[in-house]
Amino acid sequence: MGKVYIVGAGPGDPELITLKGLNILRKADVVIYDRLVSEDLVAMAVNAKELIYMGKHVGESERQKEINKLLIEKARQYEVVVRLKNGDPFVFGRGGEECEALRDAGIEYEVIPGISSALAAPLYAGIPLTHRNFSSSVTITVGHRKEGKELDLKRAFRSADTVVVLMGVSNLAEIVKQAMEAGLSTKTPVAIIERATTREQRVITGTLEDIVKRAEEEKVSPPAVIVFGNVVRMREKLRWI
Amino acid sequence: MGKVYIVGAGPGDPELITLKGLNILRKADVVIYDRLVSEDLVAMAVNAKELIYMGKHVGESERQKEINKLLIEKARQYEVVVRLKNGDPFVFGRGGEECEALRDAGIEYEVIPGISSALAAPLYAGIPLTHRNFSSSVTITVGHRKEGKELDLKRAFRSADTVVVLMGVSNLAEIVKQAMEAGLSTKTPVAIIERATTREQRVITGTLEDIVKRAEEEKVSPPAVIVFGNVVRMREKLRWI
Repeated sequence: MGKVYIVGAGPGDPELITLKGLNILRKADVVIYDRLVSEDLVAMAVNAKELIYMGKHVGESERQKEINKLLIEKARQYEVVVRLKNGDPFVFGRGGEECEALRDAGIEYEVIPGISSALAAPLYAGIPLTHRNFSSSVTITVGHRKEGKELDLKRAFRSADTVVVLMGVSNLAEIVKQAMEAGLSTKTPVAIIERATTREQRVITGTLEDIVKRAEEEKVSPPAVIVFGNVVRMREKLRWI
Repeated sequence: MGKVYIVGAGPGDPELITLKGLNILRKADVVIYDRLVSEDLVAMAVNAKELIYMGKHVGESERQKEINKLLIEKARQYEVVVRLKNGDPFVFGRGGEECEALRDAGIEYEVIPGISSALAAPLYAGIPLTHRNFSSSVTITVGHRKEGKELDLKRAFRSADTVVVLMGVSNLAEIVKQAMEAGLSTKTPVAIIERATTREQRVITGTLEDIVKRAEEEKVSPPAVIVFGNVVRMREKLRWI
């Protein structure tokens, strides 16, 4: 019986994997990886007999069940199974669910953290998430509706100095509406970071008032991270890319 | 004139640095590093002519001014200056302030993200920060008073399903009091992760009602990360260390 390593691939740039993650990847017998994981990173699995790409060909719940089944099957076949996931496995990555499935099947596993795009995208845009003068808390959340649930981000917008929304581009207008309903000023700075840390990274900035229009003009598309709060202003000074 | 690389060292385990961070560290002419950065990591700076340790011998503001001055001085002296910081430079790391100082001095810099202990400590304790059934948002904040400011975490506790408090061990009783005042149930699960990701990692769990007593019994000391919320229950099932 093999062991499954649930490894965070990081936000996009293949060099942002951890040394620990890379060392395991080099030993992998099989790699099961997601859409958006860099092909350069998958290529580092020099000993792999199988590289299995898990695209988005079915609904999210169905796909997760399929992945869980595959992890168990491969752990019975190989010694070192690497499950390579975008960002960090335990931050909106359903890594917890994969662990539960492995645990229920009596399979040993280990989780290796990854750089979350929630933190790295702002960093690569020159936006510190916290700052002595502007922000002493940051809330990370998702901007898409979960199966059968309403999107409600008002609580998040009321609470933290900086709000980072993942997977929110297609609901941008609704997210901005909720931010206003939560009482944020229309002048609140907003940044959208598209394809963060890759060569195709783009940053679009604006305010609550005009960001929807700006995003349309610039034809913003996923994957993108959205940052709300005064820390966004720091970009004018600190952008280094 | 050299370039300054502000590099996240990660949460403790030296193998949790990114490949990008490690590659720069190997080329460093000088490394300026903080308390709690692993000596094993500093030892990877094989070309360094100087290794400068910045302990906590003066007040936080004084120390930061000193670091900023040193970064500028060393950038004038060497080609590759590495500023090695715990966790991620832009998450409660004052990395933004270091960038501002460099930018004001006309010195080129680059920021390389690191694994934040805010995310990695829960992961190493078997606690996913988000979970389909328990948590769709996480707030990260600090548990110590800033110079001249009152600690107010009530807003944070009202905001997200999961709350992660950094640097809060010495104020634990006050933090717990504020969590209760914010309306959290006394049965809310709490985990304290001490020296996360290192060989000395310890995890103490309890509820809002008994965690202060538990922490005293176990003589918890910094560095530690505190997690509040129902995701803590997942540890019973998912702990893998």
